[in-house]
Amino acid sequence: MIVILKDQEKREQIDLLVEWLGKQGVSVQATEGAHRTILGLIGDTSHIDIDLLRALEIVEDVKRVQEPYKKANRKFHPKDTVVRIGDVEIGGDSFAVIAGPCSVESEAQLSAVAEAVKGAGAGLLRGGAFKPRTSPYAFQGLRAEGIRMLLEAKRRTGLPIVTELMDPSQIPLFEEVDVIQIGARNMQNFELLKEVGALRKPILLKRGLSSTLQEFVMSAEYIMAGGNEQVILCERGIRTFETATRNTLDLSAIPALRQMTHLPIIVDPSHATGYARFVAPMALAAVAAGANGLMIEVHNDPSAALCDGPQSLPPDAFSDLMKRVNAVRSALL
Amino acid sequence: MIVILKDQEKREQIDLLVEWLGKQGVSVQATEGAHRTILGLIGDTSHIDIDLLRALEIVEDVKRVQEPYKKANRKFHPKDTVVRIGDVEIGGDSFAVIAGPCSVESEAQLSAVAEAVKGAGAGLLRGGAFKPRTSPYAFQGLRAEGIRMLLEAKRRTGLPIVTELMDPSQIPLFEEVDVIQIGARNMQNFELLKEVGALRKPILLKRGLSSTLQEFVMSAEYIMAGGNEQVILCERGIRTFETATRNTLDLSAIPALRQMTHLPIIVDPSHATGYARFVAPMALAAVAAGANGLMIEVHNDPSAALCDGPQSLPPDAFSDLMKRVNAVRSALL
Amino acid sequence: MIVILKDQEKREQIDLLVEWLGKQGVSVQATEGAHRTILGLIGDTSHIDIDLLRALEIVEDVKRVQEPYKKANRKFHPKDTVVRIGDVEIGGDSFAVIAGPCSVESEAQLSAVAEAVKGAGAGLLRGGAFKPRTSPYAFQGLRAEGIRMLLEAKRRTGLPIVTELMDPSQIPLFEEVDVIQIGARNMQNFELLKEVGALRKPILLKRGLSSTLQEFVMSAEYIMAGGNEQVILCERGIRTFETATRNTLDLSAIPALRQMTHLPIIVDPSHATGYARFVAPMALAAVAAGANGLMIEVHNDPSAALCDGPQSLPPDAFSDLMKRVNAVRSALL
Amino acid sequence: MIVILKDQEKREQIDLLVEWLGKQGVSVQATEGAHRTILGLIGDTSHIDIDLLRALEIVEDVKRVQEPYKKANRKFHPKDTVVRIGDVEIGGDSFAVIAGPCSVESEAQLSAVAEAVKGAGAGLLRGGAFKPRTSPYAFQGLRAEGIRMLLEAKRRTGLPIVTELMDPSQIPLFEEVDVIQIGARNMQNFELLKEVGALRKPILLKRGLSSTLQEFVMSAEYIMAGGNEQVILCERGIRTFETATRNTLDLSAIPALRQMTHLPIIVDPSHATGYARFVAPMALAAVAAGANGLMIEVHNDPSAALCDGPQSLPPDAFSDLMKRVNAVRSALL
Repeated sequence: MIVILKDQEKREQIDLLVEWLGKQGVSVQATEGAHRTILGLIGDTSHIDIDLLRALEIVEDVKRVQEPYKKANRKFHPKDTVVRIGDVEIGGDSFAVIAGPCSVESEAQLSAVAEAVKGAGAGLLRGGAFKPRTSPYAFQGLRAEGIRMLLEAKRRTGLPIVTELMDPSQIPLFEEVDVIQIGARNMQNFELLKEVGALRKPILLKRGLSSTLQEFVMSAEYIMAGGNEQVILCERGIRTFETATRNTLDLSAIPALRQMTHLPIIVDPSHATGYARFVAPMALAAVAAGANGLMIEVHNDPSAALCDGPQSLPPDAFSDLMKRVNAVRSALL
Repeated sequence: MIVILKDQEKREQIDLLVEWLGKQGVSVQATEGAHRTILGLIGDTSHIDIDLLRALEIVEDVKRVQEPYKKANRKFHPKDTVVRIGDVEIGGDSFAVIAGPCSVESEAQLSAVAEAVKGAGAGLLRGGAFKPRTSPYAFQGLRAEGIRMLLEAKRRTGLPIVTELMDPSQIPLFEEVDVIQIGARNMQNFELLKEVGALRKPILLKRGLSSTLQEFVMSAEYIMAGGNEQVILCERGIRTFETATRNTLDLSAIPALRQMTHLPIIVDPSHATGYARFVAPMALAAVAAGANGLMIEVHNDPSAALCDGPQSLPPDAFSDLMKRVNAVRSALL
Repeated sequence: MIVILKDQEKREQIDLLVEWLGKQGVSVQATEGAHRTILGLIGDTSHIDIDLLRALEIVEDVKRVQEPYKKANRKFHPKDTVVRIGDVEIGGDSFAVIAGPCSVESEAQLSAVAEAVKGAGAGLLRGGAFKPRTSPYAFQGLRAEGIRMLLEAKRRTGLPIVTELMDPSQIPLFEEVDVIQIGARNMQNFELLKEVGALRKPILLKRGLSSTLQEFVMSAEYIMAGGNEQVILCERGIRTFETATRNTLDLSAIPALRQMTHLPIIVDPSHATGYARFVAPMALAAVAAGANGLMIEVHNDPSAALCDGPQSLPPDAFSDLMKRVNAVRSALL
Repeated sequence: MIVILKDQEKREQIDLLVEWLGKQGVSVQATEGAHRTILGLIGDTSHIDIDLLRALEIVEDVKRVQEPYKKANRKFHPKDTVVRIGDVEIGGDSFAVIAGPCSVESEAQLSAVAEAVKGAGAGLLRGGAFKPRTSPYAFQGLRAEGIRMLLEAKRRTGLPIVTELMDPSQIPLFEEVDVIQIGARNMQNFELLKEVGALRKPILLKRGLSSTLQEFVMSAEYIMAGGNEQVILCERGIRTFETATRNTLDLSAIPALRQMTHLPIIVDPSHATGYARFVAPMALAAVAAGANGLMIEVHNDPSAALCDGPQSLPPDAFSDLMKRVNAVRSALL
């Protein structure tokens, strides 16, 4: 950590600061420039509050040299983490596609979609049972009943299931769920992160709508600090001023996160763009940018459904996309 | 709700849509322009999924005419809501200041700050017992012990207390807490909103870092839908590209929210700006913009504390600010 | 255009508005709902000021149904525009790569890079002669001398050249330049757009740092309104809160713009990400998302250059990238 | 400037870098920590390209210690700059209000507004003659004729005038204009900044829609580097995801800029919010936050004008606002 002091500060105040830093267990090396003094802090600075230092009267700025995350840090764990779910692997050189309906609506619907996505080559089945909705008057999901239907679909198709957990009190229902999803709006619900950190099953963590990549990795670190190191990161779009898409999919997050962390990185183009017609180009772009997998919404009956999810693909479009995904992957090997 | 159809759509598909809309209980009035057809939906459209409509192949765009919130809507409740906490009122023509330390650290600290802010004219005492921290390795607050100290300070000074709740499991500890704060990162933790909606005590809801004003009001609506109508909205800065301040305080949220809702609106300049030196000008600006109150961080011993909170004011600066706040309020009456 | 009126407005004011609208040459069809009246405007509304309407006391909101752009609009020109520069085509099914150094520094440098990028398959040579710099003390480019060097490199290699114009007064120097670039910071320099609209040579228009896609297309419309229809759109990243990359490359702009306009769309991953190590993954992603071309910074001598441009690739990395670009393109045919 | 090197870099590469830095005229002091080396650069680093250094293979990060601006920097010029225009002063303890119509439309209109704002206490008259419009089909202003009308209004009322310059070719028309405005979209039109830097009259520089405060001050530095030190900074809202207001007025820019620079800072609440009903609260907030002045749109005939500017106040509302502005200023003295 580097502390840049303001011009012409009094010797006495600087000494006080150096003394205080010493008590925090770090040693200090001062560099005196023409106009100002710079303190280099040597030792473990992970417990020093950077905002606090920055706010001191005599401090101009503070610069962290070491990243605040450890378990998720690629520097300390250069090898890619590979999360294994049954026969499926996510991370490293493997690639997996998670597909399914936005919400679980009925056994018939889920069964139809599950068969379709399995046939097209998806490795995992997704479906929302607990639904985060901005309106209290909107459908909140089938909840416990939805989890039951997902487990039934898992038994029938053999596909492992991924579904969202919204509150620690729901954990008992998730015992047979293969991958627990933490949604974008809960990315910094720290109490929930601690709870799933105490579990021993894969967690799919979605990036918050306006979180930086460092905050995203820090939320993964929360889970890992509890001992659960099977975290999958999912980029799903950030909020910007643009209105032509629901969110702005940040694909540069893939190479940037790759450098920061060893955790697997997947992309959800369905929620990011909000329109079915943008899903295929962005899914292919994610593959080309090096994603370890995709999460895609698929609905069941395109001919009958006047009103299926706006961002969901019908099964045939999904099947066609899978072929193109594989072609791009092969081209880049 | 208005549905704008794409050019040259087939009669048959339009009929299907109109039929489907009729089943949802709304009547439809069509306007045919030179190039396209526009459907006006008449009736209660609050349960119609706007994203779903927008994603239909034949739909160009959908425009909501009615706001999706009811209980929080000024149109249906023109009179200002005034939240009463002991002798203090927040809302309408009243004005209240909530002040106290960022975190509760000790009885001595809390007691000193509480006496100081009371003396300067604050109406409520704030202090964090459960602390949302981006790092799992950072101090997470004194938790239950912190709540105990706050209640002790309340007994001694008579000041009602405001403190943050992070998870439904903590609710039993908050029985004697006067105002429950829901933090910015939990603004869309819908399960938590439902839980505090079932309580009957004032909730101070902070705006999320990247939430729109409509989303903010929708989160208040979640609480109110549960029957708890004592919600105080708190603007605390939004995330932008600017780095000179921690967040960008959005003071135009005050007149904009005032028009949307009857709920009281307060401003937290401490968290918004992140620097003690910006707190006073932004607090005064909030008052001039019409805020119903302020929430300000104050620390205890400025002379001794080398390292107090970066965004906290010492007691004398807070006392001076209170005088200027009153002067601005008087000037605007 | 749809005008949504506020509740319970007086008949008289509505009549005044309808009369005024009639004078603007549009006819009005009113729909009266339970709570409010909606006016549908039929006819050419392109000259009606939407902000002005929206601000009227009796107006709740205004919704534009027709896009404000005509010449750039895919609805009126469904066929892709293909811009031809010598033997190179940009747009439609063709694909072209523009490569070269950030700034023109010397004949030796430019010559070396030009040969290298030509050998690797680039179709056009880029290089900055007039450089937009945030600091008045930074190198402002070789200016006229740089243009001369670019023309010399063009003669030697046969590669058409692309270079940035910053002010109308520089136009005479650009007579033999093949493609004139308008930089991101000048995307809404409307006087400059008008000037290049009066020329008859291809214009490469970069998206502004915080411009919406509609504003981007409107700036192309400015150029086209002057009669110059050879406009190439270039996505180069938008400004967000993320700091791990210099900007956030918005690849969903490709399918979104594709739907809005018939103009060719290329991507500049070098400026967007700001780091050479992120250029290749984002270039490949842009190809997979359907870009009509790429614009990539290449520097000359990687072994000697301690300090080459941060976002520039050395020739061998560029050559390797070109092979992978072609592989992805082939996979998607 | 501080250069943080990556872990375990080779001695040889570090020596090369230190040697190169020496050639740039700065001396280097190295601090070796447990894991990495930090270089402190001593001397004038204003000409060293920070992006270039940051991109070197062996460099982890670079931190600028000195601000890149000199003439605008408060550190080197602690005393407030006061810009004098006739009898009006902007900066220091003085306060001035610039008011007038959005666009100059006719002599009658301009004359009526000028008299009204003068009567209410405005010190300068504003009015757009050259209008930056996002659509090429929208009214582009009366241009030369508009300037003539402004000069006529100046002669009649004695009010100095402020109007926008869009291109260097228009400068001859601005000879008698008192204050030249550079619009938000031209804040980084560097060629234009150089041209007005060569003039010797006050420049009102508006903040770009997505520019940081440092970039804003750097654009002022461009003008000052040319020898024109009479620059007035104008905050006018930044672009965010919020849609309830046209832009988000960033009032924390006032204290933040105050610390960075000695230049006067004024606020334009009309363009920032986009709605007349939000102008008064935000104007008062700007005053309370310490602005040196306001720029407010006023239209002429509220009773007759069905369609005046959405963000313009009628004269009586402006007059009432002026009284409240003075009351807030008095309260804060």
